Amino acid sequence: MARSNRKIVLVARPKGEVTPDCLKLVEEPAPEPKDGEALVRNLYLSLDPTQQGWMKYDTYMPAIPLGEVVRSGGVGEVIESRSPLYTKGQLVSGLVGWQEYTIADGGGRRMQAVPAGISAEDAVSVFGLTGLTAYFGLLDVGKPKAGETVVVSGAAGATGSVVGQIARIAGCRVVGIAGGAEKCRWLVRELGFDAAVDYKGEDVGQALAAACPQGVDVYFDNVGGDILDAVLLRLNRGARVAICGAISTYSEAAPPPGPRNLMMLVMKHAHMEGFLVLDYVARFPEAIAAMSKWKAEGKLKSRIDVVDGIESTPAAFRRLFTGGNTGKLLVRVG
Amino acid sequence: MARSNRKIVLVARPKGEVTPDCLKLVEEPAPEPKDGEALVRNLYLSLDPTQQGWMKYDTYMPAIPLGEVVRSGGVGEVIESRSPLYTKGQLVSGLVGWQEYTIADGGGRRMQAVPAGISAEDAVSVFGLTGLTAYFGLLDVGKPKAGETVVVSGAAGATGSVVGQIARIAGCRVVGIAGGAEKCRWLVRELGFDAAVDYKGEDVGQALAAACPQGVDVYFDNVGGDILDAVLLRLNRGARVAICGAISTYSEAAPPPGPRNLMMLVMKHAHMEGFLVLDYVARFPEAIAAMSKWKAEGKLKSRIDVVDGIESTPAAFRRLFTGGNTGKLLVRVG
Repeated sequence: MARSNRKIVLVARPKGEVTPDCLKLVEEPAPEPKDGEALVRNLYLSLDPTQQGWMKYDTYMPAIPLGEVVRSGGVGEVIESRSPLYTKGQLVSGLVGWQEYTIADGGGRRMQAVPAGISAEDAVSVFGLTGLTAYFGLLDVGKPKAGETVVVSGAAGATGSVVGQIARIAGCRVVGIAGGAEKCRWLVRELGFDAAVDYKGEDVGQALAAACPQGVDVYFDNVGGDILDAVLLRLNRGARVAICGAISTYSEAAPPPGPRNLMMLVMKHAHMEGFLVLDYVARFPEAIAAMSKWKAEGKLKSRIDVVDGIESTPAAFRRLFTGGNTGKLLVRVG
Repeated sequence: MARSNRKIVLVARPKGEVTPDCLKLVEEPAPEPKDGEALVRNLYLSLDPTQQGWMKYDTYMPAIPLGEVVRSGGVGEVIESRSPLYTKGQLVSGLVGWQEYTIADGGGRRMQAVPAGISAEDAVSVFGLTGLTAYFGLLDVGKPKAGETVVVSGAAGATGSVVGQIARIAGCRVVGIAGGAEKCRWLVRELGFDAAVDYKGEDVGQALAAACPQGVDVYFDNVGGDILDAVLLRLNRGARVAICGAISTYSEAAPPPGPRNLMMLVMKHAHMEGFLVLDYVARFPEAIAAMSKWKAEGKLKSRIDVVDGIESTPAAFRRLFTGGNTGKLLVRVG
């Protein structure tokens, strides 16, 4: 029985946003595992803003080669194994690519077993790279102390929603910035944020001033642009800005100008630091243990936003850049 | 004998650069010291980029009130004392203002005795706030390690020239960015910089690539703007950017956009931190002791750029923003 593998291939480098002509759905026979390999049937594909950079140019990873499947995280089930590393029926996660089947080889196409007790959905959301990004970026770069005010942008997204909840667990006042009243309500009512600023409906500077009467000690930035500028003006002395991303700029053909208020770093002896979650691979088990405990205690909620069918991936991906998702955006395969 | 005191008064807030109509030379009788006060005859007035901010708005200090003497560092000699804190003939330094005579009162208009063995010129240059800024910004914020590459902009200025020399003492490869071939020659031949980039005559990105074959580990930024952007592209993993100032932006009516390449902080897990020398007041004696030793050993050279006469102050001040000075710019009074 020849299995068919549908996959999304990069056929042109995006200049600005990822337009439909950059991607192509291709159908081919599914690969056969060789000795030392396993065949994985993918369950969920991860849609992440950083993939837009991977499509465009070399970053912290080489650009995706033209003609190849779009690089992507995801989770799947081992359906055939010729490797001692993988067992049939096992859940595995890793860089599966935007496709229905992936070969795991324990090396360059390595996938990790999902720890027992973690669902496929959690493995690519709260315990996936976006949740781990939240954990290390907030705790290791932002270094929040109880009683401080933490602001996070992209707060209703996969990373931001976890950042805010961990900041609450750390005893901080937490203010989220998100687009739309519904997202803001979700942050406050469901996730326990102290306040939320709707950047689509409010003046961010004024709303921040009201929501942060004691100023801002930690800012976890997912968006860059004007919102970064507005938060810089409210920094307290010794504040920390953790730069995770700048999604407001990723669809531009070239990096746009940066924040006007960078001199606030001088005035407030503040600190801005970038990071990549892959800097922390050795400490992933620590993070997963801590977050599992918080999840079991009901302190950490996870929300996924699921789209069905690999053919829906390109359109779903664009939603990341228009604020169209709440929580972790996933494509359910097959 | 009634002494006359000439002083430069702020009469209008600058919008962009400090135009002649913002300042007025006023002559009035010199003040008489009361009990607990001393009269200081000023020798040198300090001209510093930060004064432009003080004229415009509240920053880390309140804006200079309209109608008052321009706030300024400087050094003078006590010519009459009615205070146990001051002795006639003593050199003192502090916020003397752009004027010929200043009252020292040990309180709000406090001046410190210049330590024995330090000349009036050194007290307001290498051992003054600009030299101390170099010491703490480089060592405490930049944290250079032997063998690393340190880049400093505004390298021929009062702070930058000291930064580069301390980085050499710390065992680093040092690259200065300055305007003009003559300044660049001075940095390399006289101060021992490993290389210099002439931003007025070279493509900064290309010249930096050539001068920093191992990339940039520490960037001490005095200028902001396009030069900051160019250096960001060359940062090494774990690099530190110490933001001291952004002189390229101070004459704008409003803060211009910031660096396009801020995402390099993410790609390189790099760190950007602002600071003010006044954050380090308690550690000034440590810095002066270290720098005195280096100066005595011939490892730290100081250069001053002296203009005569208080009436020359406004025109001299504008030279700070056109790259017209080499070393510490001072006005010699009287």
